[in-house]
Amino acid sequence: MEGIKVEETKPQQAAKSEKQNQKKPAEGRAMRTGGKKKASGVIPSEPIAGVRDFPPEEMRKRTWLFDKFREVARVFSFQEYDAPVLEYEELYTRKAGEEITQQMYNFVDKGDQKVSLRPEMTPSLARLVIQKGKALMVPVKWFSIPQCWRFETVTRGRRREHYQWNMDIIGVKEVTAEAELLAAIVAFFKSVGLSAKEIGIKVSSRKVIEKIIDDLKIPKEVFAQTCIIVDKLDKLERADVVQQLVASRLIDTLSVKSIEELGALIGEEHEAVKELQKLFWLAQSYGYADWIQFDASVVRGLAYYTGIVFEGFDRTGGIPRAICGGGRYDRLFSTYGAKDIPSCGFGFGDCVIMEILEDKKLLPSFAPKIDDIILAFNEELRPAANELAMALRIQGRAVEIVLGEGKKLKWAYSYADRLGADRVMLIAPDEWKERKIRVKDMKKQTDKDENQYDVLYDDLVKQ
Amino acid sequence: MEGIKVEETKPQQAAKSEKQNQKKPAEGRAMRTGGKKKASGVIPSEPIAGVRDFPPEEMRKRTWLFDKFREVARVFSFQEYDAPVLEYEELYTRKAGEEITQQMYNFVDKGDQKVSLRPEMTPSLARLVIQKGKALMVPVKWFSIPQCWRFETVTRGRRREHYQWNMDIIGVKEVTAEAELLAAIVAFFKSVGLSAKEIGIKVSSRKVIEKIIDDLKIPKEVFAQTCIIVDKLDKLERADVVQQLVASRLIDTLSVKSIEELGALIGEEHEAVKELQKLFWLAQSYGYADWIQFDASVVRGLAYYTGIVFEGFDRTGGIPRAICGGGRYDRLFSTYGAKDIPSCGFGFGDCVIMEILEDKKLLPSFAPKIDDIILAFNEELRPAANELAMALRIQGRAVEIVLGEGKKLKWAYSYADRLGADRVMLIAPDEWKERKIRVKDMKKQTDKDENQYDVLYDDLVKQ
Repeated sequence: MEGIKVEETKPQQAAKSEKQNQKKPAEGRAMRTGGKKKASGVIPSEPIAGVRDFPPEEMRKRTWLFDKFREVARVFSFQEYDAPVLEYEELYTRKAGEEITQQMYNFVDKGDQKVSLRPEMTPSLARLVIQKGKALMVPVKWFSIPQCWRFETVTRGRRREHYQWNMDIIGVKEVTAEAELLAAIVAFFKSVGLSAKEIGIKVSSRKVIEKIIDDLKIPKEVFAQTCIIVDKLDKLERADVVQQLVASRLIDTLSVKSIEELGALIGEEHEAVKELQKLFWLAQSYGYADWIQFDASVVRGLAYYTGIVFEGFDRTGGIPRAICGGGRYDRLFSTYGAKDIPSCGFGFGDCVIMEILEDKKLLPSFAPKIDDIILAFNEELRPAANELAMALRIQGRAVEIVLGEGKKLKWAYSYADRLGADRVMLIAPDEWKERKIRVKDMKKQTDKDENQYDVLYDDLVKQ
Repeated sequence: MEGIKVEETKPQQAAKSEKQNQKKPAEGRAMRTGGKKKASGVIPSEPIAGVRDFPPEEMRKRTWLFDKFREVARVFSFQEYDAPVLEYEELYTRKAGEEITQQMYNFVDKGDQKVSLRPEMTPSLARLVIQKGKALMVPVKWFSIPQCWRFETVTRGRRREHYQWNMDIIGVKEVTAEAELLAAIVAFFKSVGLSAKEIGIKVSSRKVIEKIIDDLKIPKEVFAQTCIIVDKLDKLERADVVQQLVASRLIDTLSVKSIEELGALIGEEHEAVKELQKLFWLAQSYGYADWIQFDASVVRGLAYYTGIVFEGFDRTGGIPRAICGGGRYDRLFSTYGAKDIPSCGFGFGDCVIMEILEDKKLLPSFAPKIDDIILAFNEELRPAANELAMALRIQGRAVEIVLGEGKKLKWAYSYADRLGADRVMLIAPDEWKERKIRVKDMKKQTDKDENQYDVLYDDLVKQ
């Protein structure tokens, strides 16, 4: 969840929320132990610090994004799954010094269990796969869009939750799986109007680091830690890193920017080189060769990756954080005491991509979609309004009945304007005697006579 | 969340999960403080006690149900919203003795905040509405499908989470709002194949209890508590209740089963009677009069209801628990220190309805939907498979590429059978020289010659 930023449009809200957070305990305690009536206490209208509400206008954006994720997953024939947001803490406990395990939103529950809001989805996925055991026939391609949590100091621009599109392929050892994942990522980028000019995906393999550690006769156990340290390179002083790695060769290797160069360094026949070559070859047939580039400095911050790793980034430089990231994790299952299954996957957060799409003005308008608003002239005519509404709803139209009593036609028009409704229908006494309904077409802003007309109920319902 | 049951099909799993839960603390501690390597510890493959996993076969059911909820909400022109699953505990703290507040999944977080996984959605909804303040133009019709949590002893048949479809109308004081909510509930029941023979909705008004309390000169403050106690009537000894209520008249009134009888008891002109009459009158025009029935014993278990209350139930008697429930809460906002807004809403859990639909065999088949499986005869031909897959995916077809290397046609056929795919396509050397693809139609189990044929790549992609 590195670098998730509170949306630029709401910095003050976020700051306010944090402030409220600071003073909350006292308030909460006073309200419960004091003899004061609840009515005198004002509830905080902001959510807890660092998390987002989704009122309808925000929810429509989220739904739009998730639908794009789901549509890509569908055509790539990935099956959706989900797992509880709360899991045993030990599912996430690892010793490699990852940021993700250091910032767990964990607690001891009332049954004395150590639990945590999930920081990431892969451990739950692994748990589900282990649970199915032999009943699960591989390969499987699964996806999910979980909300993931972390606990760390909330400052402007750091959130405690995000949603993360996860796609994983379990049971394929070949690099064909990574190629398929990258194809799905690129298909998503294209579906939201982004091109290879704007977005790139850096690709490397952790087998490069593994090879160097082997060559230097450093014990295999430090592999994961080394990767985590390398991932933090940008954030650390270069000198510190050198001390920590005790190997300037690693840094030299990480600056390599082509597979040819890498081949010259670690050998043309090395597994890492072969796999990267095949991946870039497959990318051509998938049609995304121009989206990806080899970059040895990419290692990703999760301990369990073992082979190919990749991360999406903004080529135009507006957003310096990774858009998405993933890789191969062939040795994860054995850390859970199960038999290893070759696997790879990626996580794709909802925040960075929305920022990019907003920056590049690629978001569509998110108006609510309401077709008809029906007004009964008086309460005696309300049954006709209800009947009409139900008939139109059965046709699949989104219909709003004016529920408040005594509302005037003028009110209904302004209500329709606010909601962006297509039509306003009035059930009026004289017209209704002839089973007619007065319709105003709100989208035709032409002539008065043209956009208002009477229609027979039966004709309207037949449409 | 009363009476949510673990699905009948999985009692052993649930029992096992609970058992694992019991022994967990020791295990977890040993793994972290002991010097043992993680690899030797086996992670629990079950989720924490009382919560569900959603592997794809379960997720398809959930998605089907949620889509039904969403479609009803759409045609009734409700807008979707969401809020964090974690909120300040004080949002839920009430003194009326509700089960829901006694069973909170609450904890103190690492920042010393008292927080809780949400037991219900209405407080978050109220918070969002208060947050918007004057920017929010009423009426608003909002819906959500949140996961709600509770902490209580897990026994077979009691869950710690469920999903709950919530629909609320904020800003309408008339009973037209409740009528609209009930219309939506009935539209949902119809959409899943249920009829008024199988499902009923009991309707009453808390104003009846309020009136009796007034008449007996009992202080107004005990109103909410009285409702909570009355809601538990079934579960308590009748004698206890009589002692608690100090009023046998209440019990007499609760046995009333018609609005006429109620009118005779509390007066024809009483607000409660008038509202109930109008609601039942409106039900006719909506077309759900046969679904609802007056039943004075319905009060619902939430403290904040003030007027009409209702709950759906299984008329065939298979499931004794409420399917859904809701009502009017005109005084909720002032308990949060805000100005009251007339409001009503309902909650509709995902567990009871799925049990009923399963019992009544109304669930469709939930097979994954995969159109085509593509196999490359060898690795040289894989680029053609990728190209073909991407062309078909752009058309919207769900396409699986056989990713493992060296897989045979026979394997692809059995894979297609397992996934229920429509077609298997083979890229073979000779055919591909002529840009032809060998297609097997998996759904036509007729003649060998009829369901296998060669098609030109360009024709296949054109389709």
